[in-house]
Amino acid sequence: MIATAEIQVIPIGAGVSVRKEVQRAREVLTECGLRMEPHAYGTNVEGELDEILAAIRKVHEVLHREGVVRLSTAVKIGTRMDKTPSLADKRI
Amino acid sequence: MIATAEIQVIPIGAGVSVRKEVQRAREVLTECGLRMEPHAYGTNVEGELDEILAAIRKVHEVLHREGVVRLSTAVKIGTRMDKTPSLADKRI
Amino acid sequence: MIATAEIQVIPIGAGVSVRKEVQRAREVLTECGLRMEPHAYGTNVEGELDEILAAIRKVHEVLHREGVVRLSTAVKIGTRMDKTPSLADKRI
Amino acid sequence: MIATAEIQVIPIGAGVSVRKEVQRAREVLTECGLRMEPHAYGTNVEGELDEILAAIRKVHEVLHREGVVRLSTAVKIGTRMDKTPSLADKRI
Repeated sequence: MIATAEIQVIPIGAGVSVRKEVQRAREVLTECGLRMEPHAYGTNVEGELDEILAAIRKVHEVLHREGVVRLSTAVKIGTRMDKTPSLADKRI
Repeated sequence: MIATAEIQVIPIGAGVSVRKEVQRAREVLTECGLRMEPHAYGTNVEGELDEILAAIRKVHEVLHREGVVRLSTAVKIGTRMDKTPSLADKRI
Repeated sequence: MIATAEIQVIPIGAGVSVRKEVQRAREVLTECGLRMEPHAYGTNVEGELDEILAAIRKVHEVLHREGVVRLSTAVKIGTRMDKTPSLADKRI
Repeated sequence: MIATAEIQVIPIGAGVSVRKEVQRAREVLTECGLRMEPHAYGTNVEGELDEILAAIRKVHEVLHREGVVRLSTAVKIGTRMDKTPSLADKRI
């Protein structure tokens, strides 16, 4: 099932600036091979829902392993049956 | 990795009242065996992150199979390494 | 215009535990006189949209004045014209 | 207080395609004079928090007046005291 999603990773307790952690999260998403559109409030992705969910899991896994103590991630997931969902289609 | 999460499923194009679809989504989450705390803006859950993500996937799968054309799901995921995260701990 | 909303306040850089700040945010919301239903992932409120938005503003104002350096607040707002929206109606 | 925000307006019961309503919401935000960065999962804005909140209110007001029966809006608000928050600064 193809889906679009927005992923926003918020490190809690890693200091006021979280640039380094957010950058690392983006690297992990990139390694997952998803089509990505980063923006100021998260990263929009497009792909198989299973791969998107696996990518979210990997971000938590990698960031924790590298020392980030607490993560709060906000995700929006969009799926539809009338046509294949795409980020391009959601840009108006 | 144990996580807490909030899952809010929004059917788009299923009419102004979405009670039936939201109820069905809750049934699917219940069948997934996660510890659940439903509230007016979603369902809070607690469990293995993999099981939570699989439950989200199943909600999309089942609702689409039963005829819901479009879904927009908002998820918040919380993980932490300093202690086991729990919904009880998040109630203040 | 009556609305329902969910308000989740995330202090960034205030340490791994944010219990004190979240508790303070709830106190401010309580002082604003909104009907409130706290849960593990935020606080659901019901009331005039203007008062809800003013309450969100006040939370940011008070917490920053009291020393919280950075805040990320997630809000969901629901309004509808076919009937008066209420938290009771959203509990399924 | 300067803030950044992400605003995502979801019309419920307006049909499976909500392009027209989302486009109208963007027009209203544009008329409010906020600095805007639209993307596939919402519109990022930057400006006075009061003006951002007023813009959200106006979107609900205008869309309902024009016939949209139900709206669910997801907002993320960011404020910080160590420097002036900006969308440019949040792009990594």
